[in-house]
Amino acid sequence: MSIQVGILGATGYTGGELVRLLACHPEVDLAMVTSEQYAGQPLEKAFPHVRGTGAPVCVKLDPALVAASCQVVFCALPHMASMEVVGSLLDAGCRVVDLSADFRIKDAEVFAQWYGEAHKAESLLEEAVYGLPELNRRAIAKARLVANPGCYPTSVILALAPLLAQGLVETRGVVVDSKSGVSGAGRSPNKGNLFPEIAEGFRPYKVTGHRHIPEMEQELSRVAGQEVRLRFTPHLLPQIRGILSTLYLRPTLPVTSALVESTYRNFYGETGFIRILPAGEVPSTNQVKGSNYCDIGWAMDERTGYMVVMSAIDNLVKGAAGQAIQNMNLMMGLPEDMGLKQFPLFP
Amino acid sequence: MSIQVGILGATGYTGGELVRLLACHPEVDLAMVTSEQYAGQPLEKAFPHVRGTGAPVCVKLDPALVAASCQVVFCALPHMASMEVVGSLLDAGCRVVDLSADFRIKDAEVFAQWYGEAHKAESLLEEAVYGLPELNRRAIAKARLVANPGCYPTSVILALAPLLAQGLVETRGVVVDSKSGVSGAGRSPNKGNLFPEIAEGFRPYKVTGHRHIPEMEQELSRVAGQEVRLRFTPHLLPQIRGILSTLYLRPTLPVTSALVESTYRNFYGETGFIRILPAGEVPSTNQVKGSNYCDIGWAMDERTGYMVVMSAIDNLVKGAAGQAIQNMNLMMGLPEDMGLKQFPLFP
Amino acid sequence: MSIQVGILGATGYTGGELVRLLACHPEVDLAMVTSEQYAGQPLEKAFPHVRGTGAPVCVKLDPALVAASCQVVFCALPHMASMEVVGSLLDAGCRVVDLSADFRIKDAEVFAQWYGEAHKAESLLEEAVYGLPELNRRAIAKARLVANPGCYPTSVILALAPLLAQGLVETRGVVVDSKSGVSGAGRSPNKGNLFPEIAEGFRPYKVTGHRHIPEMEQELSRVAGQEVRLRFTPHLLPQIRGILSTLYLRPTLPVTSALVESTYRNFYGETGFIRILPAGEVPSTNQVKGSNYCDIGWAMDERTGYMVVMSAIDNLVKGAAGQAIQNMNLMMGLPEDMGLKQFPLFP
Amino acid sequence: MSIQVGILGATGYTGGELVRLLACHPEVDLAMVTSEQYAGQPLEKAFPHVRGTGAPVCVKLDPALVAASCQVVFCALPHMASMEVVGSLLDAGCRVVDLSADFRIKDAEVFAQWYGEAHKAESLLEEAVYGLPELNRRAIAKARLVANPGCYPTSVILALAPLLAQGLVETRGVVVDSKSGVSGAGRSPNKGNLFPEIAEGFRPYKVTGHRHIPEMEQELSRVAGQEVRLRFTPHLLPQIRGILSTLYLRPTLPVTSALVESTYRNFYGETGFIRILPAGEVPSTNQVKGSNYCDIGWAMDERTGYMVVMSAIDNLVKGAAGQAIQNMNLMMGLPEDMGLKQFPLFP
Repeated sequence: MSIQVGILGATGYTGGELVRLLACHPEVDLAMVTSEQYAGQPLEKAFPHVRGTGAPVCVKLDPALVAASCQVVFCALPHMASMEVVGSLLDAGCRVVDLSADFRIKDAEVFAQWYGEAHKAESLLEEAVYGLPELNRRAIAKARLVANPGCYPTSVILALAPLLAQGLVETRGVVVDSKSGVSGAGRSPNKGNLFPEIAEGFRPYKVTGHRHIPEMEQELSRVAGQEVRLRFTPHLLPQIRGILSTLYLRPTLPVTSALVESTYRNFYGETGFIRILPAGEVPSTNQVKGSNYCDIGWAMDERTGYMVVMSAIDNLVKGAAGQAIQNMNLMMGLPEDMGLKQFPLFP
Repeated sequence: MSIQVGILGATGYTGGELVRLLACHPEVDLAMVTSEQYAGQPLEKAFPHVRGTGAPVCVKLDPALVAASCQVVFCALPHMASMEVVGSLLDAGCRVVDLSADFRIKDAEVFAQWYGEAHKAESLLEEAVYGLPELNRRAIAKARLVANPGCYPTSVILALAPLLAQGLVETRGVVVDSKSGVSGAGRSPNKGNLFPEIAEGFRPYKVTGHRHIPEMEQELSRVAGQEVRLRFTPHLLPQIRGILSTLYLRPTLPVTSALVESTYRNFYGETGFIRILPAGEVPSTNQVKGSNYCDIGWAMDERTGYMVVMSAIDNLVKGAAGQAIQNMNLMMGLPEDMGLKQFPLFP
Repeated sequence: MSIQVGILGATGYTGGELVRLLACHPEVDLAMVTSEQYAGQPLEKAFPHVRGTGAPVCVKLDPALVAASCQVVFCALPHMASMEVVGSLLDAGCRVVDLSADFRIKDAEVFAQWYGEAHKAESLLEEAVYGLPELNRRAIAKARLVANPGCYPTSVILALAPLLAQGLVETRGVVVDSKSGVSGAGRSPNKGNLFPEIAEGFRPYKVTGHRHIPEMEQELSRVAGQEVRLRFTPHLLPQIRGILSTLYLRPTLPVTSALVESTYRNFYGETGFIRILPAGEVPSTNQVKGSNYCDIGWAMDERTGYMVVMSAIDNLVKGAAGQAIQNMNLMMGLPEDMGLKQFPLFP
Repeated sequence: MSIQVGILGATGYTGGELVRLLACHPEVDLAMVTSEQYAGQPLEKAFPHVRGTGAPVCVKLDPALVAASCQVVFCALPHMASMEVVGSLLDAGCRVVDLSADFRIKDAEVFAQWYGEAHKAESLLEEAVYGLPELNRRAIAKARLVANPGCYPTSVILALAPLLAQGLVETRGVVVDSKSGVSGAGRSPNKGNLFPEIAEGFRPYKVTGHRHIPEMEQELSRVAGQEVRLRFTPHLLPQIRGILSTLYLRPTLPVTSALVESTYRNFYGETGFIRILPAGEVPSTNQVKGSNYCDIGWAMDERTGYMVVMSAIDNLVKGAAGQAIQNMNLMMGLPEDMGLKQFPLFP
C-alpha cells in the first residue's frame, strides 16, 4: 500500500517541485497539500502546469487533519513557521522532512544569533537529523525529524566534505563563491526579482552574514573534526534554476589530481547522485537541471598553490525537493533513488 | 522482454531528448545510438548531462548493424538523409519513426516544390503514416513507417483540427502566428543563434514559404474535407524550449464559447496529452516545458468577429521526441502514455 | 538658456528612461523629479545606475512647486492620476507631455468604456494632441498638452498608417499580433513578472479588450477616413525591452512590393526615426534597443493573398520616453532628433 | 576639423561597439572600417542596427590605405593579427589603439609562454603603453601605440590597484572569481555559445591558465612594487554584457571600511568613470550596461579576516571599445570623457 504524504506550503516553488517529483514516485500517494492563499482551490490555480494530473485541492494547514491523513509530511513553510507545527505532527506519529531552516542548526544560541529570533522548539533540535544523505544515511533512516539542508549548503558541503574528512585541505581561509538561479529566492512578489531587474543584472547579495553559513560550518566542522570557517559570497544569476559553487582551497600537503579523484570516489562510491567529473571537465548548471545530481569537478593550480573545486546542483531538486524525497526514501526503507531517476532536462 | 530501440543521429537536440525520455521508459532498451561526429565516443561526450546514466557509446550509422540490433528505430537525421536509410531498415524488418520531414508529405511533387530537391524514396510515401496520434491513432498502430510531425504543425494542427472537423471555422483566410524557442533551430553552430544575437532579439523569420506549411495544409485539408490555406509566420523567441501558436479564425456560424469547449472535449476526450483550458485562461510555454502536453485555449472577439485559438507545446517533446515515443507506444501495443507521464518542469 | 523640465513619477521604468535620455539632451536642465515613494532621497536610491550623474533629489508631487520651476513637464504617473494634475500645470503656464493614457482618447465615453471610470478632466480632451510626431508634427508643435502614445499603438500605427492613408489595405479584418518585453509591465512587484515566471514562459495576455485598442482605432480611423477595427493580441516576451508587431492585411487591389516601399518612403521621407527595411529583410527588437527608431519590413504572400507588415521599436524609447522627448523638441522649436541620436545598443 | 579614425576588424562585437560610440563623438569622423568577410558591403549588412546612420562601406584591410585616410586607428583584429599591421601604421604616422592582446605583455617570453607563439613585433613592446587611463594617464597621452586592456583585467586591476598601491592587502593568495556575459566570447559561430547551451547553463571555463592572467599580474605587480600572483577563475554568464569580479583579499593590517573608501576616493578622485559605491552597496552588471563606468564596492568580513571587493563593468565598453575611445581622447588632447557620457541602459 502506498505511503500517504502531505506537503505543507505547497504553492511556493519548493512545494511545486515536491508535487512534480512525488507524482512520479511509485510508492507515494499525495494525500494532502496545504496553502493559506489557495485554500479551497485546486492546486492548478497556483500551478497551471499540474492541470490534469490529479493533484488535490489545497486546504488550510490544520496539524490534526494532516496527522490524520499523512504518514510522512514535507514541511515547506517559511522559517519560524515550521517550528510551530512540527512538534504536534511528530507527537501524532508523523515522520517529518522539514525544508525550512528551523531544525538545521543544533545550537539554539547560534540559531538565534543568525536568524534574529529565539527558537521556539528547542527540545527538538537534538533529535533532528541533518538530511544530507551522502553524509548521514544511517541516522536519516531512523529519524522522526529530518532537517533538509539549504540549497547553498548542499552544493558546498558535498564539494568539501570528502577533502576535509581526509585532511587534504586546510580548515581556515576557505573561500566559497556561489551563484544561484532566481528560483532560490522564492515566489513572493519582490521588485528586485522582476525579470527586468534580473536579466542582464548579475550581482552579489548578502556579502557578509548569509544565513546558510552556520549550517555549512556546523556540518563541515563535524566532518573535519575541527572548526571550519567559510568566507561565503552568494550571487544571483539571470537564470531560473541551478547553483554553481566555486571553492578555493589550500592543500595541507602536496596533493595530486589523482588523489583528489580517488578521495571523492571512495567517499561517494560509484553510484548515487554524486557525479565526479573526469579531470579537466567542469560542471555546468544545465547538466543537472531538473535532476537530483550533484556534479563535482576540480583543478590544481600550481602557480598559486590553490586547489579549485566546483559543484553544480539544481537548487530546487538536490537543493530542496529532490533531496527531501531522497530522505523520505531512506526513512521509509525504500531505494534511495526511487522516484528520482529522471535525467537532467538539457537544453 | 524489453523492446530494442536505436536512435540515428543521437547527438542533436532531438536525439538527446529521445535519450532522456527513453531512459525512463519501462519497456525499452536503448540498444544503439549513432553519430558521425561522436562515433567511438560515449554519448556523454556530446551530452554531459547524461553522464552516469548508462547511455551507450556512439557508432557510425550502418543500416545493417542497426537492423541487426533494433526492433524500433528513431531516425533523427537531417531531411534528405532519412530517405536514404529508411527503406533498408524497413526491408530488414525494423519499424521506423522518422523525425525528419522526409515522409510527411504525401505528394512527391509538393515535396520537391517546398524542399527544392526530388524525393529519393517515393515508393514509401504512400505507406508512411503521419504520426499525430490524436488524429491517426489506428493507422499508426499498424504502421511500419511513421512520419513524426514537425513542431509547428503539431501545435497548429492540434489547435485547428477539431474546429475544422466540425465545420465551425472557415478554411480560407486562416492566420497562424507562431513563436518558437531556439532549440528548434538545432545544435549546429550558427552566428544567428549565438546567445548575444537571440537574447533581447525577438524576430520573425521565413515570413513566406516556411517548409512546415505544406504539411499543415495537407493534414488540415484532409480533416476539413476541403482545401485549407494557412497564412503562417514563424518567430524566434529568446528562450530555449516551447512553441506558442496564435490562430485567427473566422467562425462559419455564430459560435459560443461553450460550443468551442465541447467541440474540443469531444474530439480529444478527457484524458491524454491535450489539455483544454477553462474558458478565459491562456496557455504558456512554461506550463508544458519538458512534458508531452499540448495546452489549448481560445477567446471569442465579438468586436471583430474573430475567434482566437492559442496552443502551447514543448517543441522537443510533443513537437518531436515525446510524440515519437507516443507513436512507438502505439506501434508496439503499449499504453500510449508509457514513459511520458512526467510533469512539466516549472519554473 | 536651458529649458527647465520636470518628471512626475520619475522612479518607474519610463521615468528612469526619461532621466537617461534627458541627461544627454544639450538644451535641457532636469529641474525636478517627483516620487512619492522616494521623496527626500536621491534618485540613485531608486536607480543606482544614475549614480554620479548629478540627478536631483526626489520630491513629493506638488503642482505649484512643479509649475514654479519647470517650463515643460513630463507626466509619467499612472492613468487616472495624470488627469488630476495636468490642468493646474497648464493653468500655471507649463507645457505638458503626458505619458499616461489619460488624454489619448478624444471621446470621454469611449474612455469610460475601456478604462472603467469616468474621465475627470474632460474639458482638456479636445485640446490634447495625440503625440505621434510622424503623423501630427504640426499640431504637436503648437500644443500645450501632448498625449504621448502607448507603446503598442506606436508600433502598430506607424506600420499601418501609410497603407491606410493610400487606401492600399482593407480597414476591416486587420489582425495585429504584438509581442512585448516585460519592462512594458512596469516596476511594481507582481508575481507574474518575477524572473522564474517569465523566462521560458512566453504567453498571450488580455486576449480581448486590451486598453490600447481604442487609441489605435481612433488614430487609424482618422488616417483612413473610415472606421478601422483591429483584432489585437498582446504577448509577453522573456526579454527586457522591445515590441515587435506582426500585422496581417488584405490589399484592396493588386499591390507590388515596390509600391509598398514607395508608399512608406513617401509618407515618412528618408530621414527621421522610421527605417524602412530593404525588401526581404525583417525587423528585430535588438536592432532598435535603446534607440528611438522604428524599423518596418513587409512581405507579400501570393499563396494566401495576405500582406504581412512587421515593425519593431524599443517600448521604453520610441514607445514612451524617447517619443516624449521628440514631442518636447517639436513643442520647443528644437530639432526633432535633439538628444535622441544614440545608436541602438547591440548586442 | 574632425579627427579621421579607422576601425580594423569592424564587424565583431568590439568593432560594432566602436562604431556605436564613435558615432556620438563630436570630434571624430569615421573614415574607414575594414572587414575581410564584409568587404564591399555596407556595415549595416553585418550590423543591421546601424542602418541609416551613415556608416561607411567595409573595405579589405590595406595598411597603406588606412594610413592614407586615418590619423587614429582602432585595431580590433584577433591576437597575432594586430602585430602584423601595427608597425606599418605607426611608421606611416598613425596613432594606434590596439584592442587585441598583442601589445599588453611587456616581456616577449611571457607572451610566448601564455599565447603559445613567438611575438612578431617585439621591437614595439617597450614603446606600447598599457591603456588603463586611471593608472597611466600621462603615458597614454604621449603614446603612439596604446595596448587597450583586456576586459577581465580592467575589472580586476581597477578594483585592486588602489589597495596594493597603499599596501593595504597582501600580494599573495589573492583570489579573483570573475563572471562575464557571452558577448566577451566574440561573434564567431561556436556550439558552446548557442543560446540553448548558455541560457540556464552557468559554468566556469579555463579554470587554470586564462590568458588575461599575465596582463593582470604585470600591471598589479608594477603598482604594488612587488610580485603579485592571482588565483583567477572566469565564468560564463547567461547574459549578453557585463563582467562582475569578486576579489578575496587579506588585509596586511587592521583596515576599516572608512580607510578603504578613502583609499579608493583618493586614488580615483571624485570624477571620472570609477564610481565608488557607498559602504554596504554592491555593484551589478545592469547598473553599468552600455556605459563606460566601473562600479566598485567592498565588504569587511570580521569572521574570516577577508576583505571582499566587487567590481562591475560593461565588457564591451569600459572593457573594450569605451576604454579605447577614452585612450584616444587622451592621445588627442580631448576631454577624457568626450563621447562617453551616456548613462547606463537600465533596465
